[in-house]
Amino acid sequence: MKVVLDAMGGDHAPEVVVAGGVQAARELGVAVVLVGDKALIEAELAQYNLSALSLPVVHASQVIEMTDKPAEAVRAKKDSSMTVGLKLVKSGAADAFVSAGNSGGVLAAALFGLGRIQGIKRPALSTFYPTLGGRCFVLDVGANTDCRPEYLLQFGIMGSAYVQRLWGVPRPRVGILSTGEEEGKGSTLTREAYTLLKDSSLNFIGNVEGKDIPLGLADVVVTDGFTGNVVIKLSEGVARLISSILEEEIRRRPQAMLGALLSRSAMGAAKGRLDYTEYGGGALLGVKGVTIVAHGRSNAKAIKNAVRVAVQAAEGGLLTAIEQGVRGYTHSEVPK
Amino acid sequence: MKVVLDAMGGDHAPEVVVAGGVQAARELGVAVVLVGDKALIEAELAQYNLSALSLPVVHASQVIEMTDKPAEAVRAKKDSSMTVGLKLVKSGAADAFVSAGNSGGVLAAALFGLGRIQGIKRPALSTFYPTLGGRCFVLDVGANTDCRPEYLLQFGIMGSAYVQRLWGVPRPRVGILSTGEEEGKGSTLTREAYTLLKDSSLNFIGNVEGKDIPLGLADVVVTDGFTGNVVIKLSEGVARLISSILEEEIRRRPQAMLGALLSRSAMGAAKGRLDYTEYGGGALLGVKGVTIVAHGRSNAKAIKNAVRVAVQAAEGGLLTAIEQGVRGYTHSEVPK
Repeated sequence: MKVVLDAMGGDHAPEVVVAGGVQAARELGVAVVLVGDKALIEAELAQYNLSALSLPVVHASQVIEMTDKPAEAVRAKKDSSMTVGLKLVKSGAADAFVSAGNSGGVLAAALFGLGRIQGIKRPALSTFYPTLGGRCFVLDVGANTDCRPEYLLQFGIMGSAYVQRLWGVPRPRVGILSTGEEEGKGSTLTREAYTLLKDSSLNFIGNVEGKDIPLGLADVVVTDGFTGNVVIKLSEGVARLISSILEEEIRRRPQAMLGALLSRSAMGAAKGRLDYTEYGGGALLGVKGVTIVAHGRSNAKAIKNAVRVAVQAAEGGLLTAIEQGVRGYTHSEVPK
Repeated sequence: MKVVLDAMGGDHAPEVVVAGGVQAARELGVAVVLVGDKALIEAELAQYNLSALSLPVVHASQVIEMTDKPAEAVRAKKDSSMTVGLKLVKSGAADAFVSAGNSGGVLAAALFGLGRIQGIKRPALSTFYPTLGGRCFVLDVGANTDCRPEYLLQFGIMGSAYVQRLWGVPRPRVGILSTGEEEGKGSTLTREAYTLLKDSSLNFIGNVEGKDIPLGLADVVVTDGFTGNVVIKLSEGVARLISSILEEEIRRRPQAMLGALLSRSAMGAAKGRLDYTEYGGGALLGVKGVTIVAHGRSNAKAIKNAVRVAVQAAEGGLLTAIEQGVRGYTHSEVPK
């Protein structure tokens, strides 16, 4: 198993990315191909004891920056770490690609370098979302800000394939994010997508509301990339708000400060369960190659976990599962 | 000051609504007109010592139920508590209307019974959102699931008028909810609305992301009613998730349980700052009469606080502020 890691992607690249790559190689026992500025990467690698680890470096002279316009940058920078890294996957030299860089850039580079799976209209960015009972799978969280109903149907197919194959849930409950439980609630987009999902062979449970995502009512939550992006960023903001307000109130009360000290390990455990770095990264689904997009602010642990997600997806046959899932819908106009 | 309260609206009507109405009359010193089934309301009122309080009852024989289709129900039930109550505001017999009932029903009944403020294309449902620094004002949170860019401009105008007039913020910072800070990020809708807002005389601060709402980056956050509805329900769900996970982790550790006991008042204070019942209800902006929609699950305190919001809006001249705000934009095609 060989995973390509974009050493230049992310707010703390290359140092943190290389650190995460070293951790991944050590803990997961896989080869991690580091792509980017060879001199910089090797300077970072020099700090570690790498005996018995497989961490080849592949040089790429350019970087898709966070501030770059994705499609333009991918076209202009033919030797970017993203493009060079994805070529290794495309050619079969590696099994998966991970980047914490410009997510629009990864999307554009993957569309250009890997292409779409046959029948897929729009690739979607997915994420794990921690819930009361465990986790759920949300997509699209940002690849497509304007969607059509049939895209949402395909997001449901891809999400269901992922959760079935990689989480081992036999019949994932697929819900569509809307403004009320009843059929007929929601926007024109969600109402039309509802009909397509209801008529599909997915285990469609109907509309779910905003509150139902963290409560874990669905295994897969389908939404357009605009709303999905708001969902993940808002969740992060709410968590920060709650933690800050709690901290403020505790600081005002000496007795509560003692209490907080005693509860520290419980609070740490709760934070850990909600921590994105534990989840690593979200798969870009629908392109012809396992592609994982990690958070731009990823620390080394988050990078390592993103590599873990990539390994699971590659070993678990994610692409085959999506191809099979979408096949039933591509040869007929109306999904069965 | 006379506020009409829909005694039949909400999950716990009429008992909890009447209790809230009594609290409001007592604590705010206003007259609260209770509209609904006279016998039921009077049976509830009989439990209280009402000396010196003004709580007249106006009979209405029908109820718009939570499960009713709003527009149809409003047309069919001419003697519903909503329709009867709004007539009192329309005629000038009362100053404001409050309901915790079917929010679509309130919208339909207010559109039908009060009409729109001249120049307003679509009324919007608003809410207060607790933030790190205080609170912000979010709209639309559910009245319009499909929006056009000019609606969002008007939401900005109405929200700014509200926050300026009722919160005393001289130049409210107006942001549009989107998927990235930079101009050009977002959906077709938000990009077009961005241009309108930028060209307006509002204090427009550009795009805000999901996380920026709780962090308090804007005083007014403008969004379509689909996304806004997801935002408020998701926030509620995330808060419940965090509180449940924290509780689970505390229960596993005897020392943390002692700690939690010592931190109890701090936790209570933090919860209070995030508690929707403190905020009461959201104004339905753009109709010709002060109309406040309270949460369906409102307890008596939430009802009382919704009446407080109604009193503030009526006393503060909300309608005049919105009329003035929108006037600058109604006589020209292109907003200045």
